[in-house]
Amino acid sequence: MKVGIINVTGYAGMELARLLYRHPDVELTSVTGRSAAGKKLGEALPHLMDIDLTITEELSEDVDFVFSALPQVASAQAIVPLIRRGLKVVDISADFRLRDPAEYLQWYGAEHPAPDLLDESVYGLTEWYRPELEACSLVANPGCYPTSALLGLGPALQAGIITDDIIIDSKSGVSGAGHSTASMYDYAEANENLQAYGLGGHRHLPEITQELKARIPGRDPKVTFVPHLVPMTRGILSTCYAPLVPGKLAEGKAGIEQLRELYVESYRNEPFVRVTPAPPQTKATWGSNYSLVYPTIDLRANRVVIVSALDNLVKGAAGQAIQNMNLMAGFPETMGIDALPAYP
Amino acid sequence: MKVGIINVTGYAGMELARLLYRHPDVELTSVTGRSAAGKKLGEALPHLMDIDLTITEELSEDVDFVFSALPQVASAQAIVPLIRRGLKVVDISADFRLRDPAEYLQWYGAEHPAPDLLDESVYGLTEWYRPELEACSLVANPGCYPTSALLGLGPALQAGIITDDIIIDSKSGVSGAGHSTASMYDYAEANENLQAYGLGGHRHLPEITQELKARIPGRDPKVTFVPHLVPMTRGILSTCYAPLVPGKLAEGKAGIEQLRELYVESYRNEPFVRVTPAPPQTKATWGSNYSLVYPTIDLRANRVVIVSALDNLVKGAAGQAIQNMNLMAGFPETMGIDALPAYP
Amino acid sequence: MKVGIINVTGYAGMELARLLYRHPDVELTSVTGRSAAGKKLGEALPHLMDIDLTITEELSEDVDFVFSALPQVASAQAIVPLIRRGLKVVDISADFRLRDPAEYLQWYGAEHPAPDLLDESVYGLTEWYRPELEACSLVANPGCYPTSALLGLGPALQAGIITDDIIIDSKSGVSGAGHSTASMYDYAEANENLQAYGLGGHRHLPEITQELKARIPGRDPKVTFVPHLVPMTRGILSTCYAPLVPGKLAEGKAGIEQLRELYVESYRNEPFVRVTPAPPQTKATWGSNYSLVYPTIDLRANRVVIVSALDNLVKGAAGQAIQNMNLMAGFPETMGIDALPAYP
Amino acid sequence: MKVGIINVTGYAGMELARLLYRHPDVELTSVTGRSAAGKKLGEALPHLMDIDLTITEELSEDVDFVFSALPQVASAQAIVPLIRRGLKVVDISADFRLRDPAEYLQWYGAEHPAPDLLDESVYGLTEWYRPELEACSLVANPGCYPTSALLGLGPALQAGIITDDIIIDSKSGVSGAGHSTASMYDYAEANENLQAYGLGGHRHLPEITQELKARIPGRDPKVTFVPHLVPMTRGILSTCYAPLVPGKLAEGKAGIEQLRELYVESYRNEPFVRVTPAPPQTKATWGSNYSLVYPTIDLRANRVVIVSALDNLVKGAAGQAIQNMNLMAGFPETMGIDALPAYP
Repeated sequence: MKVGIINVTGYAGMELARLLYRHPDVELTSVTGRSAAGKKLGEALPHLMDIDLTITEELSEDVDFVFSALPQVASAQAIVPLIRRGLKVVDISADFRLRDPAEYLQWYGAEHPAPDLLDESVYGLTEWYRPELEACSLVANPGCYPTSALLGLGPALQAGIITDDIIIDSKSGVSGAGHSTASMYDYAEANENLQAYGLGGHRHLPEITQELKARIPGRDPKVTFVPHLVPMTRGILSTCYAPLVPGKLAEGKAGIEQLRELYVESYRNEPFVRVTPAPPQTKATWGSNYSLVYPTIDLRANRVVIVSALDNLVKGAAGQAIQNMNLMAGFPETMGIDALPAYP
Repeated sequence: MKVGIINVTGYAGMELARLLYRHPDVELTSVTGRSAAGKKLGEALPHLMDIDLTITEELSEDVDFVFSALPQVASAQAIVPLIRRGLKVVDISADFRLRDPAEYLQWYGAEHPAPDLLDESVYGLTEWYRPELEACSLVANPGCYPTSALLGLGPALQAGIITDDIIIDSKSGVSGAGHSTASMYDYAEANENLQAYGLGGHRHLPEITQELKARIPGRDPKVTFVPHLVPMTRGILSTCYAPLVPGKLAEGKAGIEQLRELYVESYRNEPFVRVTPAPPQTKATWGSNYSLVYPTIDLRANRVVIVSALDNLVKGAAGQAIQNMNLMAGFPETMGIDALPAYP
Repeated sequence: MKVGIINVTGYAGMELARLLYRHPDVELTSVTGRSAAGKKLGEALPHLMDIDLTITEELSEDVDFVFSALPQVASAQAIVPLIRRGLKVVDISADFRLRDPAEYLQWYGAEHPAPDLLDESVYGLTEWYRPELEACSLVANPGCYPTSALLGLGPALQAGIITDDIIIDSKSGVSGAGHSTASMYDYAEANENLQAYGLGGHRHLPEITQELKARIPGRDPKVTFVPHLVPMTRGILSTCYAPLVPGKLAEGKAGIEQLRELYVESYRNEPFVRVTPAPPQTKATWGSNYSLVYPTIDLRANRVVIVSALDNLVKGAAGQAIQNMNLMAGFPETMGIDALPAYP
Repeated sequence: MKVGIINVTGYAGMELARLLYRHPDVELTSVTGRSAAGKKLGEALPHLMDIDLTITEELSEDVDFVFSALPQVASAQAIVPLIRRGLKVVDISADFRLRDPAEYLQWYGAEHPAPDLLDESVYGLTEWYRPELEACSLVANPGCYPTSALLGLGPALQAGIITDDIIIDSKSGVSGAGHSTASMYDYAEANENLQAYGLGGHRHLPEITQELKARIPGRDPKVTFVPHLVPMTRGILSTCYAPLVPGKLAEGKAGIEQLRELYVESYRNEPFVRVTPAPPQTKATWGSNYSLVYPTIDLRANRVVIVSALDNLVKGAAGQAIQNMNLMAGFPETMGIDALPAYP
């Protein structure tokens, strides 16, 4: 299968190239980029010097499958013609994540360019939408924060163990911002520094809320989501808090054990989600498609606390995109993305 | 005034030495340390090479004022004789923070060595106990996490604006752990990594709860406190969440402005606490005694969110200890600790 | 082929496990460790939780091939019996690197435990000793600093372009020190810090000198080697300086181009060495077995400057060890270690 | 004395503001900045929120002393009128460092805007030009790399102990580049990364060469200078190499001791230069005006090796600028810049 990457010079794009180049059943044949067009891939991105491709402005005609790693709005503009032509596409941007064009307008400040395609697209949280993903042609790959929060909260919410009063305190490495000229992402300023941001409302909030509502129909989760910028390149850790619904679990430590068993059971057959016996480190996912989840209870306050960790560029972006491609193309789900994390 | 530091080789101890050496009204005359005893201070700690002192095993007899930077239990053992002799002492350790010896036993696993002194000691959160500090001889200097959480939560709690359902999600740089041989603090493992810890109950939780209860008599705050280890040397950021009590503030953005004004008013005369117009960065406190607080409301969920930042080794340890010494000795409160933060 | 790892809990050991677990033609069947013996591998090393092995004190009897990641002296003690039994072994430690037992005594402070095996062992710088490695049973895997310096200096030295007055200024990430309790490797102290060390003589110096002499018989390189500790986890960059031998290359920029062509030619068929068109970043090798070399000339001073970069845990340790195993076992040289670097 | 800072929003400018605000004998009354003009200082730079000044486009008329922290060319344009008006100026930029306008043109690509002022200006390496600085009105504040290299090499060169074959391998934290939009300074790319740059010729090379020649008239040092970018915010470490002139020092360790004594003697009365007994860490200078120098000899190769460390934003920029102001204004040399380094 011949695949192409639109905007290979972004962090998600280069991570796609790294992984697809060693994928046994695909051939990477076309990579685009605006400012670097005309350069050899290895000239623009030295770590990819073994990939013998030239960056072009437009995607080659002969690809069978496309990943778009463009920012929102630009991404939809680029891929809508491809979808109309019958190509299969995974869109890393946010353009097809929100079901409701009005929400898209509110959060992204633009009219949705192809509202008719919203019904065709599938939200690419692989663990939640596997059957739909196998059958679809357009995947809206989830945001990095939502992936970590949803995998963390899903089992407890579905089992009715927690109420709707949900707080998600997320911490992300700096690569989540992509290339940016804002000084808060400069090394000298982001290093040895920590800050909360987006307290007025972050774009990943409606995405999280939409998917939680879809997962537990009839309920109305009230989510407070506060992201933080952490001085590291990769990694997201979401610490999720919600009150325990009384009577659902045993008292005391037995309840914690029941909660843990619920999560183990829920993720038993998942190739990339692991329920850990201790709070996970982001670094135990570095460079890999693994997602680590640790559920527990603060017994003094009767609150469930769930810690969820992943690599924002792999399971939070390029890795999950390839996981979805594998399903769409009928390949084994883990093909090309089964490398273990590199530690330390 | 001649001052001594017990255990100068710990991170709080060396920070005390750095600041006291340039304090206009004190003379640093004695520094102790076990493993480094006999060495020149600058031999053990090259950044202090200008201070011409030899590290000794025992404190010199002629000091008027003592800081103890020993770990708990060892600290009480060292300072109780000094207090009985009439010296004024600031204890950086946790030994005199908890009022209740039973709580001390529960959290620190040891019988309190001098329960009679608990009544004499004053909890050294300067902004809350200024009159008591001016009159006392023994200060229990607060923990770094509690300092950030209490300064953040205080005004909203006292004003009755938030309920007792409090969540404190704290993130700390690695120096908070002091010298440690645990591999989680090794550079290779702490770098490019992030993790939650202490989910079963961290020792700073009873300290926070005790002080919140003392601040709002008759109420019973249910605090969930989750600390995280962040790849930076200095800095603590606490993100605090609590439901808004209905009817206390105006609806919408006007309520946010009212909340902000309440904080500005509350800290108007404080020399080291600043209410910031945007979420604070820890680095805007680096090396200084400043504490930054940012209150807001998540209007979608009617939750108050307060972000509080400080340098764990200064306002969270040595700086606040000197601030307390200034009060105890009748010096101007800001003397010797008024350096601005170094950025970037 | 069944392989075992002695001391899997060290950084080189865990990196071997990460890579060998996904190697298509070997099965990892035995891992040892002293302090963690009895634990599941994933309990001691969470990033390896998918590998279903228990850490044992002694190596299993049924392995065909062994990697030792023990420190020197202990490593020889562990592997000599295995070699006598006929097993093939790659020793990551320094025990079989120095040809001369007297030098071993001088630099490592111990009598060599098996001087008779020094003749059998092959120095595992794959690019220099490929035929010998294919035929041997015991490989002395090179140190991380020597690998970077030798690959950088080799072509210029062999071509007679530089004199013997060689300066190697190396900079290493902290993982090169392995687990260590010295405070210079604590996060709080290694972070935002930089220092030279080993100026009185680092153990990698005799290793470098021995191999340079073997490469250019009859000459006597005078090497000054100064390593530095850099605040990053992985990566080595060696900047090598030596005077140009007059008359060997064209004047001016043409000479730089000739030098570059010499390197390109020299490494044309190497699967893992790349001659870069610009000074390499260590991060362009992160997690991979690639080595990047950039030669140039300071035309003002007629000095050759060569910059050489690699990941100290992969090409500088575990990756090169597997590269050597592939040769010893008759597998394709790149098998299991051909992942591209992860960036950023 | 009323002082002003031109371009306070750059890293050198904000460091000047931090230090000058607490200087006992000056009043900071005017700060300029282009993009931030009209903002309160604390709005643009939160760590300076206590300084009650508004950033303006033009400097206030009533200042007595001016620091320019503009980039080269722009700096000369801004300060030449001020000098003509009789103000005293310290120029942090490179505009008045090179004596020869032809060299300026070659390295900075612009005609020098005021060649007549080159003779009036003094190169502000305080330790070398103290008498001239006390008498002058225009100081060309040295570059950060040159400051570290010159303080390291000076005593050995002047004593005739080393030859002219000098190699300076420098490593700098990222803040040395100032605000920059180049992706190599983005956190995600500079973190966990290391690279050499400027191998074709860095602008600090002619500055170093000019000053070395001025220091040892009649000799012709051949300097190779290679800077490296290190993942930390502050700090420069220069490792300098040069062959020992035979017969100048005793053989063996006695020679090392003689060399060390020479340096100790040379810097005996310097308030900010310290000769260290072990290789210095950059962090032992963090936030301070101290410079640390460690000289030794590689006895195997008869090469002198000197390691020199400082904080590039303090002794390498703002601190040395204030040290020079103190001399120019007749204040005690250490006033306002005597804070000890903050560690860890």
